[in-house]
Amino acid sequence: MSSRIFSSRGSGARLARTFSKPASQQQEHTVSRAFFTSAPSSVQSASQTITRLALAISAGLAAGSLVTLIPGPSPQLCEPASTSEADKAQKRENGVTENSPMRLRMESMIRAKQQEIVEALEKVDGKRFVVDAWERPAGGGGTSCVLQNGNVFEKAGVNISVVYGKLPHKAILSMRAHHKSLNASVDSIDFFAAGLSMVLHPKNPMAPTVHLNYRYFETMNEDGTPSAWWFGGGTDLTPSYLFDEDAIHFHKTLKDACDRHDPTYYHRFKKWCDDYFYIKHRNESRGIGGIFFDDLDDKEPEQLLAFSTDCLNSFLPAYLPILSKRKDMPFTLEEKEWQQLRRGRYVEFNLIHDRGTAFGLNAPNPRVDSILMSLPLTASWQYMHSPKAGSREERLLEVLKNPRDWV
Amino acid sequence: MSSRIFSSRGSGARLARTFSKPASQQQEHTVSRAFFTSAPSSVQSASQTITRLALAISAGLAAGSLVTLIPGPSPQLCEPASTSEADKAQKRENGVTENSPMRLRMESMIRAKQQEIVEALEKVDGKRFVVDAWERPAGGGGTSCVLQNGNVFEKAGVNISVVYGKLPHKAILSMRAHHKSLNASVDSIDFFAAGLSMVLHPKNPMAPTVHLNYRYFETMNEDGTPSAWWFGGGTDLTPSYLFDEDAIHFHKTLKDACDRHDPTYYHRFKKWCDDYFYIKHRNESRGIGGIFFDDLDDKEPEQLLAFSTDCLNSFLPAYLPILSKRKDMPFTLEEKEWQQLRRGRYVEFNLIHDRGTAFGLNAPNPRVDSILMSLPLTASWQYMHSPKAGSREERLLEVLKNPRDWV
Repeated sequence: MSSRIFSSRGSGARLARTFSKPASQQQEHTVSRAFFTSAPSSVQSASQTITRLALAISAGLAAGSLVTLIPGPSPQLCEPASTSEADKAQKRENGVTENSPMRLRMESMIRAKQQEIVEALEKVDGKRFVVDAWERPAGGGGTSCVLQNGNVFEKAGVNISVVYGKLPHKAILSMRAHHKSLNASVDSIDFFAAGLSMVLHPKNPMAPTVHLNYRYFETMNEDGTPSAWWFGGGTDLTPSYLFDEDAIHFHKTLKDACDRHDPTYYHRFKKWCDDYFYIKHRNESRGIGGIFFDDLDDKEPEQLLAFSTDCLNSFLPAYLPILSKRKDMPFTLEEKEWQQLRRGRYVEFNLIHDRGTAFGLNAPNPRVDSILMSLPLTASWQYMHSPKAGSREERLLEVLKNPRDWV
Repeated sequence: MSSRIFSSRGSGARLARTFSKPASQQQEHTVSRAFFTSAPSSVQSASQTITRLALAISAGLAAGSLVTLIPGPSPQLCEPASTSEADKAQKRENGVTENSPMRLRMESMIRAKQQEIVEALEKVDGKRFVVDAWERPAGGGGTSCVLQNGNVFEKAGVNISVVYGKLPHKAILSMRAHHKSLNASVDSIDFFAAGLSMVLHPKNPMAPTVHLNYRYFETMNEDGTPSAWWFGGGTDLTPSYLFDEDAIHFHKTLKDACDRHDPTYYHRFKKWCDDYFYIKHRNESRGIGGIFFDDLDDKEPEQLLAFSTDCLNSFLPAYLPILSKRKDMPFTLEEKEWQQLRRGRYVEFNLIHDRGTAFGLNAPNPRVDSILMSLPLTASWQYMHSPKAGSREERLLEVLKNPRDWV
């Protein structure tokens, strides 16, 4: 049995649901997919592509915005088989413990968090995620969980990606700006990357879109020990209608998580988030921010794994109370149209400005559906749209043009 | 009176309609806007922004995809007042004749074609375009004509832009790849650019989206005579449902226009179009092509103006018969959804790959609404959507992945 089988909760289920195993119990060459009759026909028809998908994945990158951690030239994806094989053997024989390499601990942690988040979101929505799980033949793999046209979510994606690859010389030079320990005298370096990325677009225009991404990157010596390594990540909120109490609650929950690890983190990472998620050509932020960090190696890896775990643990408490208050609020057609225009801005940021998306799409044989999972199901562009003076829409724009401190 | 007033045809008109004068009769500092009660409320509310718009335009670029003609570093938009002033005086005193500088002849031609196209499209749709006309204080300006939520068109934009500016040294070096006559020993060169760009997104999924852009660029000596100059342009079709007879008619009409000027043009420009409008990360073309050319200076300017005029004249005969056959065809909800997914691909190309859009958005103080006028009113992204085997949707994808010769 190559994956854990969940018995379906829905009476309409035609296939048993599959979910990838925790990293400690994985087998290789898993490619599984399940769908449910409650899913829209467009999702069901996607199951026809399973063979093509498996082929594409075996040759390609399946990273989503995970790839923000690799700036500059594209990595090659020829596998450094020795390390990934050793990791696989260790997972099989010993499981993942506190003594395992950070690679395996991060992978194990994000797989557990993916499952927690997916299960919590399914309880809220009432519909199930479609799960695609795979491994790459020589190590690494991923799991995409996507829910489209749900009761609460227009589109929700929670993705894991794990990559073993080789960094070419140019990428090494580029990364040395932040990581002086990288050896620039070699032609290539083996690397490992693992990340969890998530975007939720609720249907109700009063309920905000939310995004998160937590990732770990390391380059490896020939014996599999890490040379350079770092953590990156962030969580940010994009409302169409701004409720100050929601913004305060969201930021406060993230700040509490940061403060448990470093008193400077929240302030620095809040600013970094405002700077990163900025739609330059519109002179406005994508949303009301949150936290964002990259190249983080200022503490022991153990401590930064704990910090990343804490950030991921803070997501459901930061977001679910907001969603719960907003998901069933009444709204007008005009408010839905405004949400669609804001979704258009989301598309603009992700396609024009997001470095992770650009990197992913430029990689050889990109898994485009995983990378563009972040895009909303629907979006709109109107010529010369401008909110009425004194309206809630105008107030949102004012805040997006002048980011605030919420806590 | 700073602009020609058209009496409104619609009984519900609240304001007289304004349309910019032909170049030969223009006055400076025109900023005019009209709207009609038949327009959707979102369009009407845009009229509130007229003051902000006028300010933005006076400082910015208003080019749309016109700007594909300026590769590399951004031009400065400080005005070379002498040439634009001289041009303005000449227009005022003598009008535009065959003896006028090519700048004025091109501007006059595209203004006339804009008006012809807008009037023809209004007859088809039954609704009126909203017209924004402006001049930049020291020369140049533009007219945006946009129709949203029409009877036939979901969104239609027909834009003129005229720019007098200064090319910085880096841009000169970049342009010298194609234009050896450019003087690379100077810090900057005065330039002129004028173009007409148009995108039509019909509502009916059986009716194809169409795009065109024709432009003229020149650099000027101190006495206002041209040093380097070239023409660029193209017309291309993007169906959601492919009717071979439409593709053949469209390409044949363009080929006839090309053949009247050079027997090699159609073949070369058809290939160039396929190469340019290619969505690399999807391994598919944006549409079924047409023609595309740039840096064209292989004949006398007189001949290339005639060629560009002929291409523009061929647009209505190439497109209207197709639109007429398709605009009222019955369609299913699934077919509308497929159109929305194809609109998503259109957005991907324009935001990720189109050099003109990128250039426009990176220019100082871009007029974003004019540049992104090309985006559809609505678009959609579904995770892992795949057409059914043997379906019309699958056949379209097959053609987009393997561009055909249609004539």
